[in-house]
Amino acid sequence: MSNLAAIVADIAEEMRGASERGRVADYIPPLACVSPDRFGIAVVLADGTEYLGGDADEPFSIQSVSKVFSLTLALGLIGDGLWARVGREPSGSAFNSIVQLETEQGIPRNPFINAGAIVVADVLLGGGTPAEAIAGVLRFVRGLAGDERITIDASVAAAEQATGFRNFALANYMRSFGNLHHPVEQALGVYFHQCALAMSCRQLALAGRFLAHDGRDPVTGRCIVTPQRARRINALMMLCGHYDNSGEFAFRVGLPGKSGVGGGILAVVPGVATIAVWSPGLNAKGNSQLGALALERLATRMGWSVFEVKG
Amino acid sequence: MSNLAAIVADIAEEMRGASERGRVADYIPPLACVSPDRFGIAVVLADGTEYLGGDADEPFSIQSVSKVFSLTLALGLIGDGLWARVGREPSGSAFNSIVQLETEQGIPRNPFINAGAIVVADVLLGGGTPAEAIAGVLRFVRGLAGDERITIDASVAAAEQATGFRNFALANYMRSFGNLHHPVEQALGVYFHQCALAMSCRQLALAGRFLAHDGRDPVTGRCIVTPQRARRINALMMLCGHYDNSGEFAFRVGLPGKSGVGGGILAVVPGVATIAVWSPGLNAKGNSQLGALALERLATRMGWSVFEVKG
Amino acid sequence: MSNLAAIVADIAEEMRGASERGRVADYIPPLACVSPDRFGIAVVLADGTEYLGGDADEPFSIQSVSKVFSLTLALGLIGDGLWARVGREPSGSAFNSIVQLETEQGIPRNPFINAGAIVVADVLLGGGTPAEAIAGVLRFVRGLAGDERITIDASVAAAEQATGFRNFALANYMRSFGNLHHPVEQALGVYFHQCALAMSCRQLALAGRFLAHDGRDPVTGRCIVTPQRARRINALMMLCGHYDNSGEFAFRVGLPGKSGVGGGILAVVPGVATIAVWSPGLNAKGNSQLGALALERLATRMGWSVFEVKG
Amino acid sequence: MSNLAAIVADIAEEMRGASERGRVADYIPPLACVSPDRFGIAVVLADGTEYLGGDADEPFSIQSVSKVFSLTLALGLIGDGLWARVGREPSGSAFNSIVQLETEQGIPRNPFINAGAIVVADVLLGGGTPAEAIAGVLRFVRGLAGDERITIDASVAAAEQATGFRNFALANYMRSFGNLHHPVEQALGVYFHQCALAMSCRQLALAGRFLAHDGRDPVTGRCIVTPQRARRINALMMLCGHYDNSGEFAFRVGLPGKSGVGGGILAVVPGVATIAVWSPGLNAKGNSQLGALALERLATRMGWSVFEVKG
Repeated sequence: MSNLAAIVADIAEEMRGASERGRVADYIPPLACVSPDRFGIAVVLADGTEYLGGDADEPFSIQSVSKVFSLTLALGLIGDGLWARVGREPSGSAFNSIVQLETEQGIPRNPFINAGAIVVADVLLGGGTPAEAIAGVLRFVRGLAGDERITIDASVAAAEQATGFRNFALANYMRSFGNLHHPVEQALGVYFHQCALAMSCRQLALAGRFLAHDGRDPVTGRCIVTPQRARRINALMMLCGHYDNSGEFAFRVGLPGKSGVGGGILAVVPGVATIAVWSPGLNAKGNSQLGALALERLATRMGWSVFEVKG
Repeated sequence: MSNLAAIVADIAEEMRGASERGRVADYIPPLACVSPDRFGIAVVLADGTEYLGGDADEPFSIQSVSKVFSLTLALGLIGDGLWARVGREPSGSAFNSIVQLETEQGIPRNPFINAGAIVVADVLLGGGTPAEAIAGVLRFVRGLAGDERITIDASVAAAEQATGFRNFALANYMRSFGNLHHPVEQALGVYFHQCALAMSCRQLALAGRFLAHDGRDPVTGRCIVTPQRARRINALMMLCGHYDNSGEFAFRVGLPGKSGVGGGILAVVPGVATIAVWSPGLNAKGNSQLGALALERLATRMGWSVFEVKG
Repeated sequence: MSNLAAIVADIAEEMRGASERGRVADYIPPLACVSPDRFGIAVVLADGTEYLGGDADEPFSIQSVSKVFSLTLALGLIGDGLWARVGREPSGSAFNSIVQLETEQGIPRNPFINAGAIVVADVLLGGGTPAEAIAGVLRFVRGLAGDERITIDASVAAAEQATGFRNFALANYMRSFGNLHHPVEQALGVYFHQCALAMSCRQLALAGRFLAHDGRDPVTGRCIVTPQRARRINALMMLCGHYDNSGEFAFRVGLPGKSGVGGGILAVVPGVATIAVWSPGLNAKGNSQLGALALERLATRMGWSVFEVKG
Repeated sequence: MSNLAAIVADIAEEMRGASERGRVADYIPPLACVSPDRFGIAVVLADGTEYLGGDADEPFSIQSVSKVFSLTLALGLIGDGLWARVGREPSGSAFNSIVQLETEQGIPRNPFINAGAIVVADVLLGGGTPAEAIAGVLRFVRGLAGDERITIDASVAAAEQATGFRNFALANYMRSFGNLHHPVEQALGVYFHQCALAMSCRQLALAGRFLAHDGRDPVTGRCIVTPQRARRINALMMLCGHYDNSGEFAFRVGLPGKSGVGGGILAVVPGVATIAVWSPGLNAKGNSQLGALALERLATRMGWSVFEVKG
C-alpha cells in the first residue's frame, strides 16, 4: 500500500479542480446550503492506518448511508425474521418509488430504498420510544467509529419531518398493508433522525470497518456481526446500495457501497479497507457525482474491485 | 485447495439425495423430458486442475448461460457502443417482462434479460447472415473451452422458434423503436440457436475461465478481453445474472453467476476458479434449485464469496 | 310511466330474495355491521313523483356517492380551473391505486377515484376551516334534497380517520407534488366527513335531480349548475363512476352512475328521472352487487339506457 | 331538424378555415401524404335524409373506426363468448400499450385498443382463410352502407404489414398466452386489411345507422343486431372509443364515437342520427383534432349529447 497515500492525495487534488460537480440536493435548506466545492475522502486499512484527503474531517449529513447501520442493528434485533417484511432484490425503480409497494402488497424490495429503510426503522422501535430508538442508533454508530463526537443534526431531521411527504406516503401505504407495527409518525421519527446523522468521511470509514473484516473491528477484534452477516450486508450494498444506479456503480467501481443524498458514499473492500467519500453534488440518479468518480479512480488504481484478480 | 476434491464429492453426493429438486422447464419438449434426477458440478482452478462431480460430463442445454458468451462477443464487435442500446441495471422484473420496454422506449435494462440478449444477438449479425453469426458463437465457445465437440442442439432451437411467441413479441416491440437493426426472424434465429448450445459442466467451467482471470485463459495466457472488461462482465453477472432473483443469489452465494432455464449456472471466483453446476429442476424464479444450493454450499465451505475476507 | 310503480315493486321483491348478495365492506366497524339483507330503491321523476321500494327511507353511508356533490361544489368554487389539478379520464385502475400518481406527477386521473376526490376536498377548503368546508357540503346536500334531516355520521368519519392509511398515503403523495394546498389532515378531514354523509335512497335520488334536468331543480326551477356542467358531470359519472368497473356498468345499465362502498348507487336518466339504490353487499370491484343488478333490470324494463332509442 | 343543414354548412365552413389542424399520421406513406386541409362531415337521420359538408364524399382510410364493424361481426359469430377473451373496460393506456397484457395475462382491456381488435380479427378467421375473413368484413360493410363501391386500400394494408412491429409484438404476446387461436400472420392479415378500408364520411355514416336505431337499418327495417347489442356497442364506444382520450370526448361531445388514425370519427346519436367526420390532422392522443371539434360544435348546437334533456 506504499503508494496509497499518493493516490488519495492525487484524487483529492483532481476532485478539487473538477468542473462537473453535479447538483446539490435542494429539497431542504440544510442540504441546499452546502457548497458544491466540498470534497473529502478517507481510507482506513485493516491495521487502522488512515489516508485522508480534502475535507475528510468535515461532518456532513450522511442521509441514506445510515441505512447500512440501521439494517445492521435491526438484524441484530430480530435476525432473519426481517426478511419477511423486506425483500433483498434490486428494485429497478427510484429510491422513493411507491409503485412496487402496490403490486407487492406493502413489502419493499430491499432495506436500502426509502420504503425498506422505514420498515427497518419500525423494527428499531421495538417496544421503546422513538427517542430510545434514535439514541440506540447514535450509540451504535459512535461505538463503531469510536468517536463520541458524532451527533444528529436536529435541524435536518426537523426539515425532513416538515417536508417529507413522500416518505409519509410510503409509510402510510405500508401501514395500510400492516407492514408498519408502530404509528407512522414514530417510525418516520426514527427514520428522519437516523438520516440526519452528521459524520465526517473519517468517522464513516471507521464506522464501516466491520463490513470489511468479517464482522469484526479489525483493531480491537470486537465482533459486531457474524462473518456471514457481514458478507450478506455487503451483497445487499453491492446490489441495491445505489438504487437504480447500482448496476452502473458495480460496473464502474466494483465494490459494495451505499450512497446518501447528502453526497456521501461508504464503500467496502473486503479484507482490505473501507473508503468514505463526500461531495455534495449529485448525478441524475441522486448519487454523489464526484464521490462515485473518486471511488472509480481509487478502485482502478489500487485494483480493488471485488471482481478483480487479487495479486 | 487440498480439501476441494472432498467438498465437491460431498456436494455431489448431497445433491444426489436431495428431495426438493424444483420443477423442470416444460415449455418445450426437449427440455421437459430431461430427468430431474440429474446433477453435475465442475470446478476448474487457475492452473487447470479440474474437480468434477455427478453428471459433470453430460451435455445439457445451457440456454441463458450463453448470454455471457454472446455479450462478450458483441462487446468485441462494437465495444461500449453497445450500451447505447442496452442498459446495465437490474430490471426488477421477470426475465421475459415487456413492461419496461414500453416506458423505456425499447431499451432493455441489461443484456441478460431476454430483450437485452436479443439486442446482443442483433449486434452479432453485423453484416452477415444468421448462419454466420451462429457459427461465430459456436466457434468462440469451442475455442474458449478448447473443445470442438460442443454443438448446438437443432431440435431445441427449432422448438424455441416454434413456440417462442414472447420472444417474438419482445423482438418486434424493440424493432418498433428501431432498436433491432435486422429482421426480427434473423435476430431471433441467432438468439434461439445460441440458447440451444449443449455443453457439459466441465465444458462450461472451462469456457468461462477468462472471466476469473482478468480476461485471459490462465493456462495459455491468451487474452480474450481486457481485465477491465472481464471485471465489468462479472459485475453484470453479479447484479443481473439471475433476473429478479439476483439479490438472493448474491446474498446466499456471493459470486458473479449466470443461470439458464436448462438448469445450468456458471459462477466465477475471481482469480481462483470457475464453477459450473447443472440440475434441471428450477425454483419459482426460473433458476436451478439444486444448482444454487450447491453453489451456496461450495462458496461457504471454500470461503469463496467475493464479499469475504481472503485469508 | 304507468307501470313504473309495478316495476319498482317487482325489483324490490326480487332483490329481497336474491341469494348472491356480495360481501359487505368490513374495513371499518360501522360499515361491517350493516346487514347484507338490506335493499332499497327510490325513483324520482321530473314532476317530483316518487316510487319507493324496500328500505328506501333507511339512511346509509353514501361514501363515494358524495364525490358527485363535492365535485359539483368545487366546480362552483373554481370552475374549470379544477381540471389543471385533476384529469377526466378513466383510470383503468382500482379506486385507491397510487401507481398512476407516480407516473403522472401527482395529478389524479379523475375526480371519482380517491386521489381525485381528495384534491376536490382540498379545493373545498378554500380559505376556510375543515369544519366550515364540511358544513358547506352538508348544507349543499340538504338544500338539494330539500331535507334538513340529513346528517354526517361522526362514527364513520372517525373510523375512516383512524384506519384510512391508504388515503393518507395518497394525500401525502399528492402533497409532495404540490397538488394539495392545505395540510393533509385538513383535506382528509373534509374528505372523510363528506364520505360519512348518511342518506336514504329517497334523499339521494332527490339530491341528484339537477343532474337529470339540465342543472335545475325540476320542481322549483332553481338553477344549481349550467346545463353544460350538468351534462359533463354525467359524462364523468358514465366513464369513471364505478372505477375499473365503469365499462361493465355502462355495458349493462347504460346510465351515468356513481357508486359508494356503503352499497349505494346514484344513477341519472337525463330528462326523465334519478334513481338511487342501496344494498350493502359489494361485488369484487367494490360496487353494490344487487344495486347494479336492480339498476340493470330497471333500465332494461323502462328502456332507460342513454344508448337506447327513445320512443 | 330544420336548421341542421345550416349548422352542418357552418361547421364545414369553420373547419375549412381552422388553423390548428393537428398532425397527420406519418408512420406509413399512404397516410402521411394526405393533405391536412381536408375536412368532411356527413349526418344521416333516421328517415335517411343526409346532410353533407366539405369532403363528405372523399374516401379515406377508416383505420380503427373499422373496429366497430369487426366487433359487430365477431359478436355475431361467437356471441358473448367473445368476452372471455377481451374485456370491456377503458384501459387507461395508449391504444398500442402492451403493459396491461402482461399483468392481465394476455387479455386485452377492450375490443377497441389494438390488442383487443387483433383478438377480434382472430375470431373473424373462424375456420376460414384470411382472404375469406377479409372478404366477409368488406361484404358486411358494403351491405351496411348499401354501397358496393367501398374497397380496401391494398397499399395501406401492405404498408402496415411492413412496419407494424408493435402490432406484431401485441399479437405474439397474446399468442404466448393462448389468446390467439390462429397464426399471428393470419390474424394480423385480417386486422391490417380491415383497417385499410377506404370509406367516405357519407358511407361511414350510412354504415353505422344500425347503432343509432336499435340494431336495425331504419329505412329497410333489416335487423343487424338485437337492440341490446346495439346499446352495448354504443356503451363500449362511449367508454373506450377514443382510447385514453375517451373521457375528454365524452366530456366535450357526449356521444358514443370511434376514432381512427386516418382522421375519421363515427359518432352515434341514439334514435336520431349517425355522424361521420374526417380531418386527417390528429391531436396528441391520436384522434382527429378538427373531427372532435366539429362533433363538439354539432352536438352542442343540436342538443345531441346523450346526457342532455331531450326537448
